[in-house]
Amino acid sequence: MAPAGSALHTPMMRNHTTATPDGLATVPLLDLLANRFSASDFDPHHELDAAAVDVLLDAARRAPSAGNSQPWSFIAGRRGDRVHDALVRHLAPSTRMWAPRAALLIANLAHRYIDTDTAGGTEELIEYSEFAHYDLGQAVAHLTVQAASMGLSVHQFRAFDRDAVAAEFEVPTTWEVVTMAAIGYPHGDSPRVPAGGHASSTADRRSVADVTWAAAAHGF
Amino acid sequence: MAPAGSALHTPMMRNHTTATPDGLATVPLLDLLANRFSASDFDPHHELDAAAVDVLLDAARRAPSAGNSQPWSFIAGRRGDRVHDALVRHLAPSTRMWAPRAALLIANLAHRYIDTDTAGGTEELIEYSEFAHYDLGQAVAHLTVQAASMGLSVHQFRAFDRDAVAAEFEVPTTWEVVTMAAIGYPHGDSPRVPAGGHASSTADRRSVADVTWAAAAHGF
Repeated sequence: MAPAGSALHTPMMRNHTTATPDGLATVPLLDLLANRFSASDFDPHHELDAAAVDVLLDAARRAPSAGNSQPWSFIAGRRGDRVHDALVRHLAPSTRMWAPRAALLIANLAHRYIDTDTAGGTEELIEYSEFAHYDLGQAVAHLTVQAASMGLSVHQFRAFDRDAVAAEFEVPTTWEVVTMAAIGYPHGDSPRVPAGGHASSTADRRSVADVTWAAAAHGF
Repeated sequence: MAPAGSALHTPMMRNHTTATPDGLATVPLLDLLANRFSASDFDPHHELDAAAVDVLLDAARRAPSAGNSQPWSFIAGRRGDRVHDALVRHLAPSTRMWAPRAALLIANLAHRYIDTDTAGGTEELIEYSEFAHYDLGQAVAHLTVQAASMGLSVHQFRAFDRDAVAAEFEVPTTWEVVTMAAIGYPHGDSPRVPAGGHASSTADRRSVADVTWAAAAHGF
């Protein structure tokens, strides 16, 4: 943990609006970010059309990446199609209780190593980008913000069989299935705990002061 | 690269709006995402106040993370303060030509290993989260979206001395300085190439079809 508090940078948060010392509200936090949450259950009757999936992936692909390396790819299945069926088969039992109810399941892939056929046939794996995970995280985050603007919740998870998904979709060893996401309308009864809220321990966030490196404690 | 094209999921992009087959526009891509870009130069007279920095970090801290692990911390320096001066000293020569002109420099830290004092005194480094980089990427992405809403551009980079920044700010070995970001108003003459645009090779993006895993090619 970073030491808390910095004399140079004193957080001045007030609800979702940052206020100046004289009380004038200045810069609002985007509602999209303030109200975003990961639904714990989804409306099992809601469906997404292909065009909506496209716009989500369009948001993802536009994310920044190191040297514009774009080290991401996505396996997207809509409830009822064969891709969705296959993804569901490889969910962990705990995840299988809720994730299939979402209209969309996506497996998020990172380009970890240079593809062998472009590396001159060597069998040694050469890192594609040291930022492959970091940039995949950025892409999924951009998708998440777009989803929020469409009233959709994105719940990312790790509880699935990575190797089975990779085998099922013939993912080469140079790519890694990193996470999955369930995307859809939240179920009416599911908890709606916004990011940074305090209603649930899992939604608690470290404060702005706590995520700000305490430079003052180190002589600054 | 993922094989292109999928019979199950045919991209139907039209500018920034996704259209249904009958031509009705349905879901727009957020302007914040469509118009975002990484400025190559910044307005050297623009300043950000502490409240604006707070709201950027507030956006970052609200990002989702694996098990709500929040494996991130930020060293933020505003042009003219001692943190900024110290960060500038450790930029690579190529970066030092433009990044110090931004109103704000942030070093982005990932929590890679469990802190020794919470691990029972063992000297062996135990991974804090396998998603530390991924989640830091998400946090910086959320900050980037908030910045866009404030008219600010975020330009992330790697061209700095990680070890020197870590030493300067006494970052423990359990944390890693992963990236830095320059944040401010774009300079009037700097290229304004939106994400996914085609005016610059560095802004080119793989298409929606290309980032969608071609399930059809694998029997789906």
